[in-house]
Amino acid sequence: SINGDRLWQSLMDMAKIGATPKGGVCRLALTDVDKAGRDLFVDWCRAAGCSITVDRMGNIFARRPGRNNDLAPVVTGSHLDSQPTGGRFDGVYGVLAGLEVVRSLNDLGLETEHPVEVAVWTNEEGSRFAPAMVASGVFAGVFDLDYGLSRADPDGKTMGEELARIGYAGDAPVGRPVHAYFEAHIEQGPILEAEGKTIGVVTDAQGQRWYELNITGVESHAGPTPMTRRKDALLGAARIVDLVNRIGHQFAPRACATVGMMQVYPNSRNVIPGKVFMTVDFRHPEDATLAEMDKAMREGVAKICDEIGLGAEIDQIFYYAPVHFDDACIDAVRKGVAEHGFTARDMVSGAGHDACYLARVAPTGMVFIPCIDGISHNEVEDATPEWVSAGGQVLLRAILEKAGQ
Amino acid sequence: SINGDRLWQSLMDMAKIGATPKGGVCRLALTDVDKAGRDLFVDWCRAAGCSITVDRMGNIFARRPGRNNDLAPVVTGSHLDSQPTGGRFDGVYGVLAGLEVVRSLNDLGLETEHPVEVAVWTNEEGSRFAPAMVASGVFAGVFDLDYGLSRADPDGKTMGEELARIGYAGDAPVGRPVHAYFEAHIEQGPILEAEGKTIGVVTDAQGQRWYELNITGVESHAGPTPMTRRKDALLGAARIVDLVNRIGHQFAPRACATVGMMQVYPNSRNVIPGKVFMTVDFRHPEDATLAEMDKAMREGVAKICDEIGLGAEIDQIFYYAPVHFDDACIDAVRKGVAEHGFTARDMVSGAGHDACYLARVAPTGMVFIPCIDGISHNEVEDATPEWVSAGGQVLLRAILEKAGQ
Ligand SMILES: NC(=O)NCCC(=O)O
Ligand SMILES: NC(=O)NCCC(=O)O
Repeated sequence: SINGDRLWQSLMDMAKIGATPKGGVCRLALTDVDKAGRDLFVDWCRAAGCSITVDRMGNIFARRPGRNNDLAPVVTGSHLDSQPTGGRFDGVYGVLAGLEVVRSLNDLGLETEHPVEVAVWTNEEGSRFAPAMVASGVFAGVFDLDYGLSRADPDGKTMGEELARIGYAGDAPVGRPVHAYFEAHIEQGPILEAEGKTIGVVTDAQGQRWYELNITGVESHAGPTPMTRRKDALLGAARIVDLVNRIGHQFAPRACATVGMMQVYPNSRNVIPGKVFMTVDFRHPEDATLAEMDKAMREGVAKICDEIGLGAEIDQIFYYAPVHFDDACIDAVRKGVAEHGFTARDMVSGAGHDACYLARVAPTGMVFIPCIDGISHNEVEDATPEWVSAGGQVLLRAILEKAGQ
Repeated sequence: SINGDRLWQSLMDMAKIGATPKGGVCRLALTDVDKAGRDLFVDWCRAAGCSITVDRMGNIFARRPGRNNDLAPVVTGSHLDSQPTGGRFDGVYGVLAGLEVVRSLNDLGLETEHPVEVAVWTNEEGSRFAPAMVASGVFAGVFDLDYGLSRADPDGKTMGEELARIGYAGDAPVGRPVHAYFEAHIEQGPILEAEGKTIGVVTDAQGQRWYELNITGVESHAGPTPMTRRKDALLGAARIVDLVNRIGHQFAPRACATVGMMQVYPNSRNVIPGKVFMTVDFRHPEDATLAEMDKAMREGVAKICDEIGLGAEIDQIFYYAPVHFDDACIDAVRKGVAEHGFTARDMVSGAGHDACYLARVAPTGMVFIPCIDGISHNEVEDATPEWVSAGGQVLLRAILEKAGQ
């Protein structure tokens, strides 16, 4: 059994790093506060007897040796980076639940056959550097190392530069055998809480497509330019926001469609915008539907831009097909649920997780706990100590199942 | 007669300060490049025998004495600041046409009864600091000095601080008697060029209303948040952009309606936006129609935000009623046109100008010249040397008419 109070306390201590006035955190990837969070995690792991490895993508692995250290490790973890206005649980919960498993194994004097490692994956959120889960993607061979290190933030700083700056450009190669991977996470959606269930047994994750759109019109003066002579890039972008929303509803209830980011140029009150950069995020559990959403968007954007006389470039910068997790790992999670008698249900993850990439190279499973009002990527994101503790118990059980006692 | 070549050369020399790769200028108010432009203007004026006064809003007045220096001056001028992606003529043309009038009076050895002054008004564009024409507004008593000096840019720097920083926080009081004010400007719209006319005799200027809107929803994760549970502030903002455009068309051909600026929070690809800041710019030559546009917007915004479950704050930050210029000044402009036999037509200004505020405290007139393709607030903004010269000729004639020979 894990120590739920200790896990909660660690979460609250970590939440001080990058704390925001509204009770959330801002710990953007590879900033000074991300470094501070990493340093604290490393200190805690060393105190728990782990050895630390950092790979060239800045992924951190804290290793608790097993009986047979030639065997591939069972890895668990998640990420410490956050959204600009993020919460205290997204990502960090999976990391600290992993640490709590190690601490509990120590307390219980339990040896495992396989080594157990707690992983911190770099830049999972994809907020400062797009796309999301880029470093676990390199680990899984989806992206190559150069691609990962060259991702740039809006100021043009690359992940490679920023890793070096904060001292987390490790020298270990990125990627190696993993016996099994588990990730605990808050659901980030409303289902578990609405149904009064404590644990989500994650069987699948939705597919995702991320796009960048550049819409081009003609800058002109807001006063003397008649309505009929305008090529207003923001008018086009606005209609695309509405289109994306309609596509989401059209393929509901399982589709999600979002414009999260928009940059208007020159962004001056009395200038008809000449250029807009915007992003689109499509999700669906079925790949064929994602393809239909893609088609609907491309047709809709072409029509909108034709009508106004705008240029449109659409660039799909990120894609992964829906993921089905490993049946044996799913079973290991179910066993943890049954052992403690938690209420539970099967779930499809709406968010992407490092587990989605790990699933390509290792048997993988995920454990969800509810979050209050289904709200995440928001400073008010919240969870109860009971849920936090329950997820840790299930994680311990699943890890023991695969690591062997 | 003025020296058209010299005026053109001065325009091209000034255009080097803040020159952009696409042939425009970026000389945002009170930046280092704005200071460099002001310094060059001051040097030129001193060389032309003028004395310089700077008032507390940073407005610069270069004075050529008259026969009777107790008389209020005839003032002409415009602004040196530009849009972020502005052109080589907007504003600077009126300033340098004024300087050319002074230089020509010197060349011709002409004395005037009233002193003649060339004015540079601070922050006309309203791009770095909103609203537009704030310093001529203080001069005309529309805004008080504290309001003017406390206008802040998006980084929170105030006009007062920035004036001090660049050395243009003068000590002269803001506002004093003006015998007459003339301003030469490019049309910034398509009418003169389309009709093949060289001079616009500006009889009126449209009224304007500027708004700031803050739209509030709930930030949430783009993946696991079902379409039906979203309070997407950007979806609301997008529909408001479309609404504003429809209002422009509804009251066309004389109305203009623009959303020029939008800031999305937290502006992260996988976060449903929780907040949007946006601006609205309405223009019409009739005040009653502006009021109807205001009503249509308020009703439309309320409906859009109700449907999505968003909060909306609408703040009208800038308003002026349509302006009718002084009939004697309009006549003085007409005389200049007739004397040179230029083709001309009467016009309503679509843009706001410092002249619109000066008109409240002094007899005021304006001279327009065409601009290529009617494009302004764009780096490609352009005019021909013939037009530039013609406007200067008319300006000289109008100033002589009011300053007395
Ligand atoms: N868990 C999480 O918030 N991941 C970010 C990537 C995504 O948008 O799904
Ligand atoms: N002339 C000019 O561009 N003025 C800026 C103020 C306005 O938007 O009308």
